[in-house]
Amino acid sequence: MDITLEQAQAAIKAAEQKAREINVPMNIAIVDSGANLKAFARMDGAWLGSVDIAIKKAETARYFDMETGEIGKLSQPGNALYGIEHSNDGLITFPGGIPIKDVEGKIIGAIGVSGGQVEQDHEVASFGVNAVK
Amino acid sequence: MDITLEQAQAAIKAAEQKAREINVPMNIAIVDSGANLKAFARMDGAWLGSVDIAIKKAETARYFDMETGEIGKLSQPGNALYGIEHSNDGLITFPGGIPIKDVEGKIIGAIGVSGGQVEQDHEVASFGVNAVK
Amino acid sequence: MDITLEQAQAAIKAAEQKAREINVPMNIAIVDSGANLKAFARMDGAWLGSVDIAIKKAETARYFDMETGEIGKLSQPGNALYGIEHSNDGLITFPGGIPIKDVEGKIIGAIGVSGGQVEQDHEVASFGVNAVK
Amino acid sequence: MDITLEQAQAAIKAAEQKAREINVPMNIAIVDSGANLKAFARMDGAWLGSVDIAIKKAETARYFDMETGEIGKLSQPGNALYGIEHSNDGLITFPGGIPIKDVEGKIIGAIGVSGGQVEQDHEVASFGVNAVK
Repeated sequence: MDITLEQAQAAIKAAEQKAREINVPMNIAIVDSGANLKAFARMDGAWLGSVDIAIKKAETARYFDMETGEIGKLSQPGNALYGIEHSNDGLITFPGGIPIKDVEGKIIGAIGVSGGQVEQDHEVASFGVNAVK
Repeated sequence: MDITLEQAQAAIKAAEQKAREINVPMNIAIVDSGANLKAFARMDGAWLGSVDIAIKKAETARYFDMETGEIGKLSQPGNALYGIEHSNDGLITFPGGIPIKDVEGKIIGAIGVSGGQVEQDHEVASFGVNAVK
Repeated sequence: MDITLEQAQAAIKAAEQKAREINVPMNIAIVDSGANLKAFARMDGAWLGSVDIAIKKAETARYFDMETGEIGKLSQPGNALYGIEHSNDGLITFPGGIPIKDVEGKIIGAIGVSGGQVEQDHEVASFGVNAVK
Repeated sequence: MDITLEQAQAAIKAAEQKAREINVPMNIAIVDSGANLKAFARMDGAWLGSVDIAIKKAETARYFDMETGEIGKLSQPGNALYGIEHSNDGLITFPGGIPIKDVEGKIIGAIGVSGGQVEQDHEVASFGVNAVK
């Protein structure tokens, strides 16, 4: 199953609330299981450059079915996936992208968040993921 | 002034309602006055190829501050703007993109809708525009 | 010889004055004999989508050493250069781009203007060309 | 408020003067608050490859509302934003890009300078910023 728009908008709403709570305006993107954009929101005052980063984090998380920060560890100089960011018209491999699963553990999409420090991006993305039932 | 996320989400919600009413799942994109993506929603079952078209329609409407269908009339073979679609990494010049103005008539962004016949796309976009106060 | 920055800025200044006279805010681009961007100005209120069009008109005029409108006649459906706009990351083949020559008739660059009707674009571009000594 | 063409041209003029003073021909780009190109100048003898770098530096500074060199510190191997340059069709994250603010401190655009050593680029960009009133 694919993520529904209702689920995607619930994820965005939860992420927005967390972002407001920590006072960091964020870009929030949701892609479906085909890594195609499903929903997006740029909070007022959020970085323009993070539109593309949020979308790429969501895509990257679904492309490899893992959190973007995990890929980033493998793509450091000297490591196995060094340079992987050159594929797919550009990956983003630092934290803030997380796969979204259904109740049975099947991946139905992914969320990407960008606008703060990467730990903040990841935390806000987690809140989005947890809002998907 | 730029369109706010609250205004953008109100536009998407109104467009979604109209799309549901005419029973055509749509992609709906909102850009701000700088033609940067502000919000997006792909309704369940809407065409994947219309993600990019909806975004390009919104961008095109803001790039030239007019409805996309108006540009399309001028870009037909033999007309003044023939071939304009080759600019800006691709324009979409058939109906479905409309500038969004504030109460004083200043353009604050644009909406782009894609997923049905172009008259349907335009009608749904109009409902989005009218929801912005 | 290549166009100098002084010449390019003189061309932009003259084009700006003409644009103000006819009350149409314009995007004005100058490329050198290598078709590389030399100078650019977007007048306040000019279309965002015309940034790229002005640059592409200047490039196109220098790529083929003729006015862009001339190429546009040849690229209409059924004509010899139909589809040429697909080359070079996108050409613009309607009026507004003109080669710039030195006093001996050698091409040293080109100007591209976009923001009004194509006749206006061409007229403003002509004023720019004539300002280059 | 967006940067005006008058402000943008004043910034370019001041940057040009500084570049002439230190005897390094530069590419100088100004973008507005939507990260769209507003004005540009390539000084005679400046590197062709720096046209794109100057524009990308200006865009990058506005995308993240900080000096490009600051982002570059964060994007080194092992640091939080490693690989961010793969977003937005290519960022430039070494010094030479600086946001431009109005008198109230609101960001109205950005400048990007490229053509010399990065410290020179940054110094020339600073002179451009300071010329905007």
